[in-house]
Amino acid sequence: MSEAPFNDRFLRACRREPVDATPVWFMRQAGRSLPEYRELRGDADVLTLTRTPELAAEICLQPVRRYDVDAAILFCDIMVPIAGVGVDVRIVQNQGPTLAEPFRTDADLSRLRPIEPEADVPFVMETIRLVRKELRIPLIGFSGAPFTLASYLVEGRPSRDHTNTKALMHREPETWGRLMDALTGMMITYLRAQVEAGVQALQLFDSWAGALDPTDYERHVLPWTTRIVDGVKDLGVPTIHFGVNTGHLLSLMARAETDVVGVDWRTPLDEAWGRIGEEHGIQGNLDPAACLGPWEVVEAKAGDVLRQAGGRTGHIFNLGHGVLPETDPGTLARLTDLVHEETS
Amino acid sequence: MSEAPFNDRFLRACRREPVDATPVWFMRQAGRSLPEYRELRGDADVLTLTRTPELAAEICLQPVRRYDVDAAILFCDIMVPIAGVGVDVRIVQNQGPTLAEPFRTDADLSRLRPIEPEADVPFVMETIRLVRKELRIPLIGFSGAPFTLASYLVEGRPSRDHTNTKALMHREPETWGRLMDALTGMMITYLRAQVEAGVQALQLFDSWAGALDPTDYERHVLPWTTRIVDGVKDLGVPTIHFGVNTGHLLSLMARAETDVVGVDWRTPLDEAWGRIGEEHGIQGNLDPAACLGPWEVVEAKAGDVLRQAGGRTGHIFNLGHGVLPETDPGTLARLTDLVHEETS
Repeated sequence: MSEAPFNDRFLRACRREPVDATPVWFMRQAGRSLPEYRELRGDADVLTLTRTPELAAEICLQPVRRYDVDAAILFCDIMVPIAGVGVDVRIVQNQGPTLAEPFRTDADLSRLRPIEPEADVPFVMETIRLVRKELRIPLIGFSGAPFTLASYLVEGRPSRDHTNTKALMHREPETWGRLMDALTGMMITYLRAQVEAGVQALQLFDSWAGALDPTDYERHVLPWTTRIVDGVKDLGVPTIHFGVNTGHLLSLMARAETDVVGVDWRTPLDEAWGRIGEEHGIQGNLDPAACLGPWEVVEAKAGDVLRQAGGRTGHIFNLGHGVLPETDPGTLARLTDLVHEETS
Repeated sequence: MSEAPFNDRFLRACRREPVDATPVWFMRQAGRSLPEYRELRGDADVLTLTRTPELAAEICLQPVRRYDVDAAILFCDIMVPIAGVGVDVRIVQNQGPTLAEPFRTDADLSRLRPIEPEADVPFVMETIRLVRKELRIPLIGFSGAPFTLASYLVEGRPSRDHTNTKALMHREPETWGRLMDALTGMMITYLRAQVEAGVQALQLFDSWAGALDPTDYERHVLPWTTRIVDGVKDLGVPTIHFGVNTGHLLSLMARAETDVVGVDWRTPLDEAWGRIGEEHGIQGNLDPAACLGPWEVVEAKAGDVLRQAGGRTGHIFNLGHGVLPETDPGTLARLTDLVHEETS
């Protein structure tokens, strides 16, 4: 692998430069869908794995050996920096992040403090350095966006309705603002440290922002997300902004001015691009569940995605959300090749 | 209450006829948010309550005493007719419908059979008859739409990703079609029986259809939903078609040709109406979580909804999904009056 020239197709597409084929990577390409991950993992939990750079680096590289993808993504969890400053977060298998004591009042804000990445999460920085030595494709770093992080802190567990989070936002807008301020400051520092350690692009996961109506999103979320993007802009690495169920928010999300906006499978890419604006790249958007179907279904639906992208520069092929655990890795290998062949 | 003239504002709005004020009702207005419901319920589960017509009728009437709403909705659960034909469904509190043995293969289809409402769910028909005697506003009957029912049967529990359901749809399209056929036939019979017993409008809950991309929705769901609407059309009662996260499906959902399409809080009503077409009424769409905020927030956001509806005939004010259990009933009483005052 180290003999090959560096493949910058993904970075070029992020910048809307011409490419020889549409770049491909898959959210959650590392991890739970790969048998070699399940073997390596054993009974360890995700936070333990991320705290062991040799293991985290190996997990990040596993899918790169299987698939001809054009980017790798750091193996980590969005709650790692939160745990890094001392908040008691657990990642419960098949459930997600949980807090024994959710954040509910202004007093809880004292449980957060500015992050010092090389001291608080040194293993993340070390994982990045280890992975970069092995890769001939770009490495994507990431963080949660403040709304999604706040939702985990306030709900104490993954939530469908985000009831407590929205109640805090509406009842205590000043506390909400201070919580978002704290998370924003932490994420800027954390993302800058990732770039310093070697990541070549950054993705902001605002996975649950789609639960908000446009007015609440614009008032209570977008200003902070925009601040994060502004806070890393001088570093010159491409940025991606992603959430699910965000069809109604795409034009607002684009205002945060990341290079690329990620789109789930609900909104066809041509419509999505219209909302985002052609000056931005777009990432997506095959339904992850389509990959559980027979190859004919995968092929037809991937073809739809490519047709809707219409061969425009700035398309990065991805799923509309993370790879499902039940996915056959052989399907993703074949899908990667299909996208490259169809677009070159 | 029985002295007052019959209030047909809701039925007129469904038919896009002029009204003296915008009609209001709330999905889940009966039930978990009301202290008198929690007292009446005790430790009983939802299926037990629905099987006791006196209790189910009382629960249906409780919100009508508190709020000046323009419609009542049958207190029932979408899984009741499924349980009625002998499928072992439980409604687990704070979780939703669960099946010990989910549907996964063609052989499971034999667990469904045509429903005979007066024999299989006589208590539903009796509840309708009891409630109608007391009401001076229209009573809405309902059923699950086949995709949402199928998802509960196939997943065996509420699901975020609907992975098994989509996998079945893609891998075994013929089995999927037979499952949808069976559910469609059952729901037509069930809804017709509700009208015969006295309901004056019908709502189809396709709560989870928003998980599908437009292509899958059009191919694997819409034909069956349309068949249900066709199967009750001759009865002349207004029909409503509702789901959450369906911003991307609204123009397709409108093709099922219900009188009204229900919209969640994500899509502003003016945009939604553009997608649905002005020939349909629209129902919605305040974020239920907004009702947890202070009155100023509720008032401002309800005002946004009314402004987006723009005073057009055919608007039925509702939340964008069910009333949250944490909601203060006083807020809903005040909200009902606000909408009436602002639009009369």
